[in-house]
Amino acid sequence: MIVELVSTGTELLLGQIMNTNAPFLSARLNALGFSVVYQTSVGDNRERMKNVLQTAIERADIVITSGGLGPTQGDITKEVTALLLNRSMYLHQDSAEQIERYFAERRLCMSENNLRQAMMPAGAEIIKNTCGTAPGVIVEDQAAGKIIINLPGPPHELTAMFDASIAPYLKERFGIQGVIVSRVLRTYGLGESALEERIKQYILSQSNPTLALLARSGEIHVRITARADSETEALGLISELEGQIRPHINEYIFGIDNETLETIVGKLLIANNLTVALAESCTGGLVTSRLTDVPGSSRYLVGSVVCYSNEIKINQLGVPAAIIANEGAVSRQTAEYMAKGIKDKYSTEVGIGITGIAGPDGSTEGKPVGLVYIAIAGPGGIVCHQHNFNGTRADVKHRTALAALNHLRQYLLTI
Amino acid sequence: MIVELVSTGTELLLGQIMNTNAPFLSARLNALGFSVVYQTSVGDNRERMKNVLQTAIERADIVITSGGLGPTQGDITKEVTALLLNRSMYLHQDSAEQIERYFAERRLCMSENNLRQAMMPAGAEIIKNTCGTAPGVIVEDQAAGKIIINLPGPPHELTAMFDASIAPYLKERFGIQGVIVSRVLRTYGLGESALEERIKQYILSQSNPTLALLARSGEIHVRITARADSETEALGLISELEGQIRPHINEYIFGIDNETLETIVGKLLIANNLTVALAESCTGGLVTSRLTDVPGSSRYLVGSVVCYSNEIKINQLGVPAAIIANEGAVSRQTAEYMAKGIKDKYSTEVGIGITGIAGPDGSTEGKPVGLVYIAIAGPGGIVCHQHNFNGTRADVKHRTALAALNHLRQYLLTI
Repeated sequence: MIVELVSTGTELLLGQIMNTNAPFLSARLNALGFSVVYQTSVGDNRERMKNVLQTAIERADIVITSGGLGPTQGDITKEVTALLLNRSMYLHQDSAEQIERYFAERRLCMSENNLRQAMMPAGAEIIKNTCGTAPGVIVEDQAAGKIIINLPGPPHELTAMFDASIAPYLKERFGIQGVIVSRVLRTYGLGESALEERIKQYILSQSNPTLALLARSGEIHVRITARADSETEALGLISELEGQIRPHINEYIFGIDNETLETIVGKLLIANNLTVALAESCTGGLVTSRLTDVPGSSRYLVGSVVCYSNEIKINQLGVPAAIIANEGAVSRQTAEYMAKGIKDKYSTEVGIGITGIAGPDGSTEGKPVGLVYIAIAGPGGIVCHQHNFNGTRADVKHRTALAALNHLRQYLLTI
Repeated sequence: MIVELVSTGTELLLGQIMNTNAPFLSARLNALGFSVVYQTSVGDNRERMKNVLQTAIERADIVITSGGLGPTQGDITKEVTALLLNRSMYLHQDSAEQIERYFAERRLCMSENNLRQAMMPAGAEIIKNTCGTAPGVIVEDQAAGKIIINLPGPPHELTAMFDASIAPYLKERFGIQGVIVSRVLRTYGLGESALEERIKQYILSQSNPTLALLARSGEIHVRITARADSETEALGLISELEGQIRPHINEYIFGIDNETLETIVGKLLIANNLTVALAESCTGGLVTSRLTDVPGSSRYLVGSVVCYSNEIKINQLGVPAAIIANEGAVSRQTAEYMAKGIKDKYSTEVGIGITGIAGPDGSTEGKPVGLVYIAIAGPGGIVCHQHNFNGTRADVKHRTALAALNHLRQYLLTI
């Protein structure tokens, strides 16, 4: 089954908003076994939308539109759909009442325009919108064997409606048996092409499960997707392939599915009954902020010091002034003193010290922008890692934060 | 002039990547006075790409493709372009040499495939790629009055090539006189619809300059764009409109163009010769991290304490244990003691204390998730603001950080 996605809205053509609906729908539809082969965007213009939908319905079996279901004169997607499939429009009573209720409950004034949202193509299936006022629509042209589905434009309404109503409809309508299950192996520390090189044979030879590599802000995700009659069977296929590829990349896998570096670190700290404190210089609190993104992180994170000035490093963390004078604020020794200092001061089992040059200024001879030291002090002794990161100030901060979280993870695995 | 954008690449149809090229090109082309009326995505399939480009060249004057210029067998955009415009392909010697040089300089092994990138449609203008190996292509069909432009897919290559070569070509080719200048008024504190309500009359009545509202992670940007014969004239038009709308929204405007809340705060601290330190609880270091995103922030940011535990609040910041016991760790009094405590401890002129409940757990009777206190102690005395934010843990942290930076900005404006 060939699917074409048609996104409507002049704001797309002006480049004012990013189209997130198309990748969402594409991923979902591909997982269900449909082939999305065209994605088209068109503005709120009757003639052009009609032409685009005409072309779409000729070259695809299913056309899914997003946007243009609202109450304004520019919202014309349902009308154009009705026109193309030779349907009249009528006021759908249930939808009208629901819209009236929506306004009454919020004590808002409803204008006549709002009832446009309840005008529907004859013979359409009306799909409830659980997150907004505009219902969705499914219109089937039995004779031609074509289907047009109109979804609302706001991403949270569209995603909720697709998962709650459209996916089940498509599965039943096309007798899609079984389930599709994905597992994501999240990796850090190896580049995309190097990772691909190691597991290339599995990427090329697999049709079920399939393997995909996705770069996600410093991490590479390996997604395994299996189709099978039952979830158990799908999980079996996934585990089998996972068992084959793990030996090639195992040291870089830190978690699966929604696990982040900070949730994994949190679990390891809880499992080992350890608390942690940080002394951050070049990252300015970013690593602590990421650790505290995890609900319940107050169980193991006691606190941190952001020590931007040398005085704070000396007075608050006990870094010897002579070390800073002789070795520099950005040095292995300073990082180690910071880690020990914060550990003692905040009475934790683990302390982390991070110092570096985020740039664009601040480099000195032999110490370029991007030079970073990350020290960890704890039950496993003191270790310190040196890095030379590339990129902007924001890049250096982000890469340092990822590296620090990953070093902490590895440290906790070895104690 | 009607433009159609054609994005190629199977990864788009699988929903694996976001299409950022289409909004970039749309915004740039609209600013030049072109009308982008269709955006189409198609995979690396010869037949389908040919049909899509055929349709595009029929309904548009200019077709701009992105992607498919690489060295693999799946990179077919130039071939399909040549086919449609009846051109043969030839090896472009300069491009071939440049690619060979690129590999030699990096001591990489070049495969025969890489020379595919130097195969060009006859009569095409070849556009240098300053960020990668695949040159761009402009092919004009004089008789039909149509133009096809092939750009590389990687966003940083495409944006650089468009600005350096394609925009100047289009301006000269279509005799686009004058300049287009934008200014962004960045606002915080008023919702999009409320802001729109205040300046609606100017949005509706303007054609030059135009006004657009853009929501950007908690801020609303008001973009004024003017077209004129000279930059001076355009800036005059912008300033005139800015003068008209400012009285309606002035208290919410914090900066223009690339100014962020943290750069503005930094400038105010420098102008007043003040230093600052923070005590962060619920934000976990996020506010300090944002302040240190500004190059040179070490001039005014001395350091911070992330005080997740009550012990740190008491022992390191001097919050009286009785206050925490009686009023709670999340209270106006605790926030104020934190602000004063960090100011004294780190010997700064300004101290900030932030405490709240980021959720999802931690709410108590009368203290719901999202309750946040932000205190500022400094030359202007002590002030404390209470907020009740909605949303996830990440939302609450983000909204608290924005509010804290804005409160600090307002505080510094009044001293």
